[in-house]
Formats: sequence, structure tokens, C-alpha cells
Amino acid sequence: MTFDEARELDASDPLAFARKRFRLPNGVIYLDGNSLGALPAAAPSALADTAERQWGDDLIASWNNHEWIDWPTKIAARLAPIVGAKPTELLIADSTSVCLFKLLVAAARARPGRRTIISQKRNFPTDLYVAQGLAEMLGLELKALDPDEIIPAIDSDTAVVTVTHVDYRSAAFYDMRAVNEAVRTAGALVVWDLSHSAGAVELDLNAAGSELAIGCGYKYLNGGPGAPAFLYVAEGMQDELQNPLQGWMGHAEPFAFVDDYRPAKGILKFLTGTPSILGLGALDAGLRSFDGIAMRDLAAKSRSLSKLFVSEVEARCGEEVRLESPRDPAQRGSHVVFGHPEGYAVMQALIARGVIGDFRAPDLMRFGFAPLYNSHVEMIHAAEILEKILATREWDQPRFRQRAKVT
Amino acid sequence: MTFDEARELDASDPLAFARKRFRLPNGVIYLDGNSLGALPAAAPSALADTAERQWGDDLIASWNNHEWIDWPTKIAARLAPIVGAKPTELLIADSTSVCLFKLLVAAARARPGRRTIISQKRNFPTDLYVAQGLAEMLGLELKALDPDEIIPAIDSDTAVVTVTHVDYRSAAFYDMRAVNEAVRTAGALVVWDLSHSAGAVELDLNAAGSELAIGCGYKYLNGGPGAPAFLYVAEGMQDELQNPLQGWMGHAEPFAFVDDYRPAKGILKFLTGTPSILGLGALDAGLRSFDGIAMRDLAAKSRSLSKLFVSEVEARCGEEVRLESPRDPAQRGSHVVFGHPEGYAVMQALIARGVIGDFRAPDLMRFGFAPLYNSHVEMIHAAEILEKILATREWDQPRFRQRAKVT
Repeated sequence: MTFDEARELDASDPLAFARKRFRLPNGVIYLDGNSLGALPAAAPSALADTAERQWGDDLIASWNNHEWIDWPTKIAARLAPIVGAKPTELLIADSTSVCLFKLLVAAARARPGRRTIISQKRNFPTDLYVAQGLAEMLGLELKALDPDEIIPAIDSDTAVVTVTHVDYRSAAFYDMRAVNEAVRTAGALVVWDLSHSAGAVELDLNAAGSELAIGCGYKYLNGGPGAPAFLYVAEGMQDELQNPLQGWMGHAEPFAFVDDYRPAKGILKFLTGTPSILGLGALDAGLRSFDGIAMRDLAAKSRSLSKLFVSEVEARCGEEVRLESPRDPAQRGSHVVFGHPEGYAVMQALIARGVIGDFRAPDLMRFGFAPLYNSHVEMIHAAEILEKILATREWDQPRFRQRAKVT
Repeated sequence: MTFDEARELDASDPLAFARKRFRLPNGVIYLDGNSLGALPAAAPSALADTAERQWGDDLIASWNNHEWIDWPTKIAARLAPIVGAKPTELLIADSTSVCLFKLLVAAARARPGRRTIISQKRNFPTDLYVAQGLAEMLGLELKALDPDEIIPAIDSDTAVVTVTHVDYRSAAFYDMRAVNEAVRTAGALVVWDLSHSAGAVELDLNAAGSELAIGCGYKYLNGGPGAPAFLYVAEGMQDELQNPLQGWMGHAEPFAFVDDYRPAKGILKFLTGTPSILGLGALDAGLRSFDGIAMRDLAAKSRSLSKLFVSEVEARCGEEVRLESPRDPAQRGSHVVFGHPEGYAVMQALIARGVIGDFRAPDLMRFGFAPLYNSHVEMIHAAEILEKILATREWDQPRFRQRAKVT
């Protein structure tokens, strides 16, 4: 595709207006919104307002005056159209790992007598670590299987299945309806990890019959580093499940200060301690960046961007890189990975030239497409820079081979 | 005491310089730093820097370039002189309730075969809720006792004891050495909740032989609403304990992305998910407000403030209020409570006049003294305003009886 053609696509892009909702540094093509979303332009003033006017001026009264107490549900409600859920089925709380622990333990305990938790080999690591920890604690067995082994393995001993909807490496995704159906038939439960889906692909948790899910706030949702996570519990499951991390914020009357725990009604029972108000304020700005965006348009743009990027990279770089994501854009989420034996060094060379993706072991270069702020022109530019780096072996320098602490 | 005498005390206060480290609104006497610490003057710019320069400009590279990855331990190290611990024994992570869950489960599992968790009746509610939840999950029994029944109850069936060092209502505190000694003799473990102690009283966890503790970041530590909490695991316990909330940030090699959990060495294993960087940035500003402060001076000022406040209130208000905290300042933390049958309404009338304390059921007015920013003159002013409100029955208005959602 020529630059002119890409410019035309961008000119007719129904989401083009959203780019100004973000502050991105000049000279950077940011293809890592799947790891840390860009700064929403509204976030700094939202944070300053929360810190200075609310915390600073109104102090403790802000819990009432600025309704901090309602933020975990009120801000979560903004997710409803993004994930296809009722506002009362969503809550923002804790980290993704902690949310997963809550729902996995709750689900496992709601299926007493069943001894197996099923997950995926090479799932996002923290999902496996959380499941391993709680399986050991509860005397259950964790089976980590290949993706195509999962549905056949679900049986009457399966308490709970947990998989990441869009794979953090390949971006391949599960058929949510099919897994839900297999799980339901077996009388088990499934907890979906939507970390690499929410805000990037079309989701309809309700229509797909999903009962439990969690997801990350700092990737495509643009909530900032270490943003609080979200959890989803379908209305019909809220009474049945018990939060294993009982805390005062999930109590029916947190300010009665009584000794005995009595869970709040509905989704609120899944709160534990005092939520990070600063984190919620920034995530609110991130979620507002989706205002007026049709998720169908967003998903279409995601496919258009990734398709263009893949075809440009393959046309320019030939066999030196190999696509390790599904080739069909309809079969993947909003990122792609290319393998290269020197993937780490090549990625560092790209970053040095302002094309920011990331590296995933053992040899994968990962590029994410955030439809709210990435453009078609950027796809061609990024592919062109990659082509040049490979052609000149620019990556072949000690400074690019030096592994950083965080990759 | 006369205002002039109070002014003299303030003039010779070795901590007087610290007040300018905070932004407090004009016309307010803030006696609720035990619930939500005041805004450190450095916090807004620290937050803006974290959001705009780090997240906004440097994006994902900030994990390395700004060492976000090290913040949970680096910022925790600032707590070392405040609580009397080695820097490598401290970690900032998650909410207070979640930290308590981690250490309670870890401790209970390190004492297999023992079936009892001991806590205090009318402990801070979330501590009891957390303990109830995990006792049920692990098949243990929680015994909530009166404070003086606790040491006698510790026996060979006790897995773990958890008490709040300074009581959130009365401010009475436990003899840390005595409890540690009883627990050690019985072969059990104790998890201290330092939420109402850290930053307010002299603590020496190491010297007292404390092995496990957690505490709140948003009270006397001034970390902002819902700030991340801290946990303390004595060096000698770090290998023995296992974090039940296993997550990637506590892995020996988080970025190797391997399927099997292998805990990090030392305190880091108690991390779970990605920490709130914005929350850590604000808490860092809060902890810096203790730079150069001797905790002995801070504790002495705390006693001086609370003693003055109690004597002024009692002299002015007579029998209409009753002190429900230990009378001896050496026997209490940095807040006091006065009972009044209409305590809720009286507190709202105080707040309307700019004296901000809080109310705790059933009838307690709670006043906290933050030695970094409260002064002796404020004590007399606050007592004078309380006197007036009681004398004129100013509190006796429907608007002051209307209960807010958060008290």
C-alpha cells in the first residue's frame, strides 16, 4: 500500500477524531498499547483534580462529597458497552491477579467435590501462578493444556476453567461461546481473562453466556501503570458466589463497624479493601476515551491496521521474520507477533528509532494496535523502519543485545 | 493552658518546620489524619511527573528508565526508620486487607496442624472479615477475644494471632513485646496491624521481636486515598513463608514468562500483580514528609498534643463528654475518642465549623493528632469550638443528624 492510500484510509477513519484524546510524544509510533496504554489527554487534569481539589481541599469529606465510595461501581459502569455487560455486573478493584484469585476461588468453592482446574499451557504467566497457588491451597489439581485440548478435557470433575480470551503472545483467541457451552454442559464454571481483549476487540459477555471474567485496566483501557483491574460477575451468579477476600468495602454496611462479615448485595461483595482513588481517577479518564466509540468500528479498525502491518512487514522483510499470529485478522486480537532469532535486539533497535513494541520470550517481537490512536500511515512507517533495520543489520550492536530488567 | 502558652510550645516544637510540607485548606483544624492523611505539598508535582513525564513521554520504557519495577521495595525502604525494620523487610503492595490476607494465610500454613486464629473483638472490622473469610476457607477456627484474654488464650493449637497494635477506636495499644513473647513461647505467629501506629508512634519492630506486620498507607503516612499498603516480614521468616496470592510480580523471573511459579528471593515474593504506580508515587511523597524526623520527637509531640486536647476538652465540656481512651498519653496512640450520646451530630457541627474529626459507632467522636502538621494552638481552638457547640446545643439540628453514606 502506498502512503497516499494509507492517508486516505486514515482520512475516512470514523475513529480518527479519538487520537486527540491522547498525549503521545512526537516522533514515536506507539505499538505497545497492549502492554501500557497511552496517556489520555484528560488524565493529568483528572489526577490533579482528585489530588488537589478533592484530597487536598475536601480531605476526608471527599468520600461523600466526591462520591469516592461509589467509584468502584460508577467507573466500572463505563465498561458496560466495551465488554457487553450490564453496569451492575462490573466492578473495579485490586490488581488483575488479585481479581483472578477472587473469582477462581469463588468459582471452585461453588463447585464442591470437583477437583480440577483447567487452564492453558503458556497462558499469561500470572494466571497460571495464581491458579497454581490456589490449587495447592485448596487441594485441587491444575491441568494446563494446549488450547485445542481444553474443551475435550472439561468433564464432571472440572470445577473451573480459566483461559485468556486473546492470547498475550499470538493474539489467537478462543471461541467464547463454545467454551462457555462446554463448561455449562459439564456443570463447571469459566473465568475469562479479558486483559488482551477489553477495549481492543468486540466483546459481548452477556450474549456469549459468560458468567465470570476479569481484565486489566492499564492496557487497551488506558488506565495508567498498575491501574486497578476489573471483574465481571453475571447477575445470575452474584448470589451464589462468595468472595474469599472478605473485607470491609464488600460488607453490607461497611460503616456500621460490626464484628461479623455480611456480604453486600450484588457485585459490591467482591470489593475487599479501600480502593485506590488515584488509580480509579486515572482509569476513569482512560475509559472516557471510549466515549461515543462503537466497538464494531474499533474492531474493524484494529483488523485493518494489523492486516496492513502484517502485509507490509512480510512484503518488505521477506523470510527474515515469521508471523507467529493467526494470519486471518478475524482470528486474532489487536496485536501480532513476528519471530526473529534476534528478536530482542531487533526490537531494541526499533525502539531506538521510535517504533515502540515489545519483546516476549523466546524470540517474539510483539506489536499492538490501539485503534483509538494508531493510524494506517504509522503501519507503513513502522514496517519501513523494520525493513531498514533488518537490511542494514542495525540491530547487531551490543547496546541492543543488553537485556533490560523489564522486557 | 492559655493561647500564649500553646504558642510558646509551638515556637519551640522541633517538628514545626514540617507543617509546610503539607497543603491544608485555610480555616480548617484537621484532626482526621488518622483516617486520611493530609495532602503532602510535594504530591501534586510527583503525580504530575509520574503521569506526564514518565507515563506520557516515556511510556512502557518507564518500567526500566524510571525504575517503576523497583518502586514497591525502594519506596517501602523509606518506612524502615518509621517502623524500626530493615529496608529489605518491607514491601508496598495491594490494599491493607489484601496484605493481611497474604500474611495470615502464609502464617497459618506455616503452622500446619494448629487450628486456631486468635484476634480481638471489636478489632478494626476488615481485619476480622479477612480472618473470618480465610478461616472458613482453610477450615480453621477464628476466636475473637477481649484484649486481656488474648495472651492467656495463646496455646499449642494457636496457629496465628492478629491484632491491631493501636486500637482504631480507643487508641489503647498492645504491649508488642509481651504478645510476641507469648506467641513465640507457644510456637505460633502473630501478624500486627500497624494501620493506626505507623507514622504516629515510636515503633521498633526488630527490637520488639516482631515477625509479621501490615499497615495502611493513607493514614499517618499521608499516601492519599486508597494508597497501597505495606507489609513487613522479618528476615528470618522470609524463606519459611509462602505467598498464597502468587503472581508474576513475585516470581523469581517475572519476565522469563515461564509456566511454573518460582518465588522471588526475600520480601519480593509477597508481591502479586502489577502495583499501582500512581499510588506508589503519591505514597512516596507522603513518606518523604518524614525525612529528617526523629520518631522519638514525633511520638513526644503526639503525646503533648493529645494531652493538651484532652485536658482542654475536659476542662471546658465537663461531664457532657466522656473520655473513652486511656487517660495516660503513654498508654495510647495518636488519637483519642470522646463519647457523647449525640456524637454523630456533634461531630457534624464541629466539621461545619472547620474542626474535622470523625465519628465511630455507636457514639464516639474521634480526634487524631498528626504531629507533622497539627499544632498546640489548634488543640485549644478545637476544644473551644467544641465547648461552644455543646454549650449552645448548636449540634441539635436536623442537618447534623442526617447520616452520610460514609462516616
